[in-house]
Amino acid sequence: MDAAEFRKRGKEMVDYVADYLEKIDKRQVFPDVEPGYLRPLIPDCAPQDPESFEDVFKDIEKIIMPGAASPACTELETVVLDWLGKMINLPEEFLAGKDGQGGGVIQGSASEATLVSLLAARTKTIRRVQSEKPEVTEAEIMGRLVAYASDQAHSSVERAALISGVKIKSVPSDERFTVCGSALKKVLEEDKAAGLIPFFFCATLGTTPCCSFDKLLELGPLCNRENIWMHIDAAYAGSAFICPEFRHLLNGVEFADSFNFNPHKWLLVNFDCSAMWVKKRSDLIGAFKLEPLYLQHHHQESGLVTDYRHWQIPLGRRFRSLKLWFVLRMYGVTGLQEHIRKHVRLSHQFERLVLQDERFEICAEVILGLVCFRLKGSNELNKALLKTINDAKKIHLVPCHLREKFVLRFAICSRTVECAHVQFAWQHISQLATELLETWEPNQQQQQEQEQC
Amino acid sequence: MDAAEFRKRGKEMVDYVADYLEKIDKRQVFPDVEPGYLRPLIPDCAPQDPESFEDVFKDIEKIIMPGAASPACTELETVVLDWLGKMINLPEEFLAGKDGQGGGVIQGSASEATLVSLLAARTKTIRRVQSEKPEVTEAEIMGRLVAYASDQAHSSVERAALISGVKIKSVPSDERFTVCGSALKKVLEEDKAAGLIPFFFCATLGTTPCCSFDKLLELGPLCNRENIWMHIDAAYAGSAFICPEFRHLLNGVEFADSFNFNPHKWLLVNFDCSAMWVKKRSDLIGAFKLEPLYLQHHHQESGLVTDYRHWQIPLGRRFRSLKLWFVLRMYGVTGLQEHIRKHVRLSHQFERLVLQDERFEICAEVILGLVCFRLKGSNELNKALLKTINDAKKIHLVPCHLREKFVLRFAICSRTVECAHVQFAWQHISQLATELLETWEPNQQQQQEQEQC
Repeated sequence: MDAAEFRKRGKEMVDYVADYLEKIDKRQVFPDVEPGYLRPLIPDCAPQDPESFEDVFKDIEKIIMPGAASPACTELETVVLDWLGKMINLPEEFLAGKDGQGGGVIQGSASEATLVSLLAARTKTIRRVQSEKPEVTEAEIMGRLVAYASDQAHSSVERAALISGVKIKSVPSDERFTVCGSALKKVLEEDKAAGLIPFFFCATLGTTPCCSFDKLLELGPLCNRENIWMHIDAAYAGSAFICPEFRHLLNGVEFADSFNFNPHKWLLVNFDCSAMWVKKRSDLIGAFKLEPLYLQHHHQESGLVTDYRHWQIPLGRRFRSLKLWFVLRMYGVTGLQEHIRKHVRLSHQFERLVLQDERFEICAEVILGLVCFRLKGSNELNKALLKTINDAKKIHLVPCHLREKFVLRFAICSRTVECAHVQFAWQHISQLATELLETWEPNQQQQQEQEQC
Repeated sequence: MDAAEFRKRGKEMVDYVADYLEKIDKRQVFPDVEPGYLRPLIPDCAPQDPESFEDVFKDIEKIIMPGAASPACTELETVVLDWLGKMINLPEEFLAGKDGQGGGVIQGSASEATLVSLLAARTKTIRRVQSEKPEVTEAEIMGRLVAYASDQAHSSVERAALISGVKIKSVPSDERFTVCGSALKKVLEEDKAAGLIPFFFCATLGTTPCCSFDKLLELGPLCNRENIWMHIDAAYAGSAFICPEFRHLLNGVEFADSFNFNPHKWLLVNFDCSAMWVKKRSDLIGAFKLEPLYLQHHHQESGLVTDYRHWQIPLGRRFRSLKLWFVLRMYGVTGLQEHIRKHVRLSHQFERLVLQDERFEICAEVILGLVCFRLKGSNELNKALLKTINDAKKIHLVPCHLREKFVLRFAICSRTVECAHVQFAWQHISQLATELLETWEPNQQQQQEQEQC
């Protein structure tokens, strides 16, 4: 949707809201529909091709309003996350379907998805250990639980462990910034020998520093054998899996217990919208609801009949599936694939420009929309380059450390980015690098001395 | 703002967004402002009288846009929560001010505020105990920690303890559904004698079932003496404290470590907007950030310089202070006070109608906008009445249990509610009660028999 159409549609929407407010006392206070009413009214999967705004908008009055906030808010979320799961070809077990035991939920952020899955794993493990050794107290088990993630994983994984009161350890990544099975195996064996209880591994697909991918096909079977919950954090990269040519990056998801990615990062949905799926919803519910009543409820809960308050940290919920539903329909699968492909094309364009300039080096394989690069030379030189770039305020880069190297990150993000923007950015960077290098040599020693003071 | 003005202003806003999108490449990618830029640009407190939409809207381009998302998003939140804190006359220690160690934050829900404060209390207590007895392990301490809340408290308090991996116990409320100091003292003494470590008490102001108030002036000093973190959950009732005549209900907040209420519940701000204040921000940060770097950062953090990602569960944040800022300015303090007062007047109007009908009884003192009432008679009779009311779908009531009694709750909620709505609702309830009672006697025994099957 361009600005001109947004102007038109936005105003129609304002009128719709004003009409609603003016006539609200004509509406019934409680809907007539029964739970499960929504699924038969909408298709089983997202449209391949874009639909018109009119068609989507008409469905608000036809499909959503009769179900008001409840149960429409819950049911649309379940159905649209089935759509999205199918778009990335998630195994059937993760979908809610008509009577599935898995399903999807919208969280606010990947941090919350990681926390929720870690809490579910914690409860599940405590119960398992207690059923095997009833003499061990919960506090003792808690003190021996240990979670794992790559040394490249996002800090939110460490934070989730902190909140949950369990230990967490980094698993060393290899020279491609990837965790492989043998690295995890080694840590697990040491820890088990020391009397710890490994219970949770967070695999990362698309790490924050350089968009590297952990080896699910090695890690997954290992976790399954060892009774370790495998959660996959694909916050950024997950959107790319809607393209068949990138779907192989998700191979091994069949071994996972939970999976998460953020449509608000790269699928044109406004913040916040973090999509999470689990294979066994009873595992999540078990972490948050411990009353004796629970089992009774659990057997009823499947497919569309979902009580999302047991799937998340807050109790209240916003109607976030509406925006996802609108975006999936207005772009269609093909429109969203084109968006992803354009970004990946443009990052490779930038990569080629970097590679053609022998003053620079590429620091990690370019797989999706992120290019890690730097001037060949010291970290101080690259810090100076970053400062010049960000001070000029034409473009903005966020750096990272890859091992001992200070690295610049060029990320393709905007909906409206084009080839010309990438060219402009590269010329700008290249020009600033030239100016920097002209004055760098004479000052370098002085700089270093200043830093030592 | 009525529907007609919403129609006009909403469309102006759509144009503003469309203009922004069309000219986005003319804007700088990073703001020129320095941290702390915002406070001098806006007043120290909320306006008493309403401002015009034009005046508020003008400030978007003037005050917000130069600070873009960062630091404007953070700084407006800190300043507007100082405004709101002053409106309810929170002690100075809870405010951020220029260089305060306290301050406010917008959470998504009261559940998150409770969890965040409980986690802060957990970390603080573990550190204190370890500094006194270095030989005790963290796991041992965790196993002995115990949190408390009223038997009338919201289920989210129990949930917060579950997530945090600590025990929680109910403190018995008295005949007015209130926790007093002696009740907490008794439980504390028993638990300390049993070797447990009491560390957290969640006081409730305005309980969910009947809007009762725990006795802060007794509980606060006790918690302070016993090194127990006192958090106050005033999710619903907190909005009323902007009126001087209700502010006494908050007396004792000076003993609390953290305080929370939901402007999205009763202050005309859209969901979600849960306002939380702490006296010592370093306590919150300590729960989420444990790196050695932390202390360095902590000394810098005060007043407007705030890193909210250490104050909450998710890392990402929305610009929620904008809606609070708009509402406070467009209503002014007097407009919002009038809104609260009207609701309380209307609930007393409903209370009088109930009291005039001797078939009914009032079940808890009416203090704010909630009336708990029932037909004199069995729980079955009242369940039947509720079913008739909700099946008719003219109004909608949510029930509760007060001790052994099944009780109907009449809650004044809507922005547009008037005297006539309350009269209509009461006539409707009264009529349905008459019809029910006409047929009830002969069926009552049969009903009871059915229930026994």
